[in-house]
Amino acid sequence: MFELLHSDTSYPAESRILEAGCGVGVQTVILAKNSPNALITSVDISEASVIEAKKRVTVAGLTNVRFEQADIFNLPHGQDSFDHLFVCFVLEHVSRPVEVLHTLRNYLRQGGTITVIEGDHGSIYFHPDSEAARRAIQCQVELQRRAGGNAMVGRELYPLLIRAGYRSVRVSPRMVYVDSSKPELIERFTKKTFTAMIEGIRESAIKAGMIEPQVIEKGIRDLYRTTESDGVFCYTFFKAVGNK
Amino acid sequence: MFELLHSDTSYPAESRILEAGCGVGVQTVILAKNSPNALITSVDISEASVIEAKKRVTVAGLTNVRFEQADIFNLPHGQDSFDHLFVCFVLEHVSRPVEVLHTLRNYLRQGGTITVIEGDHGSIYFHPDSEAARRAIQCQVELQRRAGGNAMVGRELYPLLIRAGYRSVRVSPRMVYVDSSKPELIERFTKKTFTAMIEGIRESAIKAGMIEPQVIEKGIRDLYRTTESDGVFCYTFFKAVGNK
Repeated sequence: MFELLHSDTSYPAESRILEAGCGVGVQTVILAKNSPNALITSVDISEASVIEAKKRVTVAGLTNVRFEQADIFNLPHGQDSFDHLFVCFVLEHVSRPVEVLHTLRNYLRQGGTITVIEGDHGSIYFHPDSEAARRAIQCQVELQRRAGGNAMVGRELYPLLIRAGYRSVRVSPRMVYVDSSKPELIERFTKKTFTAMIEGIRESAIKAGMIEPQVIEKGIRDLYRTTESDGVFCYTFFKAVGNK
Repeated sequence: MFELLHSDTSYPAESRILEAGCGVGVQTVILAKNSPNALITSVDISEASVIEAKKRVTVAGLTNVRFEQADIFNLPHGQDSFDHLFVCFVLEHVSRPVEVLHTLRNYLRQGGTITVIEGDHGSIYFHPDSEAARRAIQCQVELQRRAGGNAMVGRELYPLLIRAGYRSVRVSPRMVYVDSSKPELIERFTKKTFTAMIEGIRESAIKAGMIEPQVIEKGIRDLYRTTESDGVFCYTFFKAVGNK
């Protein structure tokens, strides 16, 4: 799955990369490995996340990343400080994605690129189909919306980047298609990434009164059901690249 | 779009191909062009369709196709008569897809391949999102269901082929992603193929009491709305290849 999203992103030696919103550094490790001679600055507003990201990168033996705890709306960097921007799984959490993209553009040199990767929970479908599973997923979408985010932001990358002033924007969908001929994807994606995430919001969704306990239980069971021998699960990520 | 679905299907010279369910020959023309020296037999149960398909292939100047009006459950061919099977946009119309695939398998030689292509109306999403547009699409799904078909069969190709006895089945999704950087796809796919199809079922859906006239009108307008400069439209086809 990392391959699917990251394999075509590699920056030249000495180029200055800003990873805006690095979180706990899961993407940072891949980014740094794929661009071993680029100079990566990874920023997150959460100090706890930065500490964990730093640890993760150190454990991976990578030395081309420096970390900063900072607000992306107010970075300690001047205009045109970076050759390229990398923004992965960040826009889904923000309420004003165009403003974020537009602000980040200030730090980018003329001609530099921005790369944005997001998922889209409205891209999910599966076999056997299940109303309960769809409702369970809808809880995740709704919880994220209430937190100010947008779990279906993937499909919007093109208009968002255009509105933020980038040009030559090209978007490519990256679909994860899982059937029983792909046991590794069943384990790593359908079970341990996606369905685990829905299990993780079970209590919050019930507490928020969004769904009855037995419905979300059934929804989660039905998501696991898609990993059986006749099951299929589909999810699409979107990757956009634009220029300043 | 034809490229997306067909470009990786080309059969060797002299190989015997059965196109089961050729309809009015839209796919036949592409199939025959991509395999100019294969011997293609295209079958459909409707005589009117076969006549139209024949005309279409003649106009295209193709001479490697012969047509038969026949029921695919009872073809005038013996066992193992064909090296490869090609089945495109057929399963969506049948109520017993496994039986169709299983019957067709009899006509295939040991080691031959089957190629199946289908869409999936549950794979559609767009920006701006619209409840009315989703309901309009749901009418098409429901009308097809009442006619004995399944407009969401694409995602099921893997289990269907396995259950019908094929082996080494591999499925690849073919996603059509349309944003305003792709004016040709907007015209040819979002407007003239997909939205035109939904417009085509407007009267039947209203007559069947599935939807209020003003809702389907709004749904159609909202589908056209996705073709504006900030709009996005996504649809996924599935292509499966299996062996006997």
